[in-house]
Amino acid sequence: MRTIDPGKHAARRAAILAAARHCFARKGFHQTSTAGICAQAGMSPGNLFHYFATKQAIIAAIVEQEGSETAAYFDERQGGADAYGALLDFMDMVLALAADGDFAGLALEIAAEALRDADIAARVARNDATLRAGVQALLENAAAQGQADATLDMAQTASWIATLVDGIFNRVAVDPHYAPLAQRDSLHVLLARFLRPALA
Amino acid sequence: MRTIDPGKHAARRAAILAAARHCFARKGFHQTSTAGICAQAGMSPGNLFHYFATKQAIIAAIVEQEGSETAAYFDERQGGADAYGALLDFMDMVLALAADGDFAGLALEIAAEALRDADIAARVARNDATLRAGVQALLENAAAQGQADATLDMAQTASWIATLVDGIFNRVAVDPHYAPLAQRDSLHVLLARFLRPALA
Repeated sequence: MRTIDPGKHAARRAAILAAARHCFARKGFHQTSTAGICAQAGMSPGNLFHYFATKQAIIAAIVEQEGSETAAYFDERQGGADAYGALLDFMDMVLALAADGDFAGLALEIAAEALRDADIAARVARNDATLRAGVQALLENAAAQGQADATLDMAQTASWIATLVDGIFNRVAVDPHYAPLAQRDSLHVLLARFLRPALA
Repeated sequence: MRTIDPGKHAARRAAILAAARHCFARKGFHQTSTAGICAQAGMSPGNLFHYFATKQAIIAAIVEQEGSETAAYFDERQGGADAYGALLDFMDMVLALAADGDFAGLALEIAAEALRDADIAARVARNDATLRAGVQALLENAAAQGQADATLDMAQTASWIATLVDGIFNRVAVDPHYAPLAQRDSLHVLLARFLRPALA
């Protein structure tokens, strides 16, 4: 009987997801074949199905992975003494991710797929709710610390922050001169004026 | 010899583009067949090729059409007495377009395709430059009229407005509870604080 080494299995699964992320970002979900993913991961096509039954299962796993990373990111950063600084750090990380072409491409591909696939849409909606809840908690802590305007509706404000995050990834696709990291100072001005007009 | 009625030809071409927009928004570019577009437009597949040689040519024509509409929109609105009001009107129109699921889906599909197809990317980049130039001209007029903070870098500020526009279309895909038209008041607060902090 064949035995499975859980550590090796997890490492292989992660390698497949990394290869799939790369292929999907470059060619899109529907133009990418499982054979192409296997070639990128350096494994035989017959082997892939020990890890994922279908290409759709790989897409779902990537969206799940992003959700877990988002949840862990915000969990680690809640309750600190500088909630506004933590929010700026998050936005700076978004700019850094947008500077990674693969990441930006994948973000757009996932959003477009969510409009066409109910399962992906449900997973994406959960991730988005996680992100907005994390931002909202930082905003509420910032307001409690006197770092942000407490009169703002923080759920709606978190939705605008999420709008900026989505838009930053989109810019990479539509403006060839867009340099995410060069946007940092002007983003901080926008956020300061919007979130704490009395201090800006 | 067969003659072509230019008016009929243009009307038929517009009908094909409308049908294609609908199909692309629902199924994506790569999952849509030209046969599907013909069925939606109520024409025979053999007939389509009098208007467009390939599916890619239809995608390019849709992007061109959006560029022409954007240019015409801003041309009509430059030089008015209330440039800040014109900017708010533009953003209100964006919210209305985002409330149209087909339009939002197509916007995402086009952005994702721009990352993979150099010809589409060049067309999308031209449209985006048109949009940013139009917004920048409104911002500069608003500043000249004392309606906006003249110390802002208006090219960069226009890029942030474009970021919000992209992000608004993205929200529709990722947040099932997002209601674009309900965002109007909070968007106006965001813009007022960012663009004219002394008046907000």
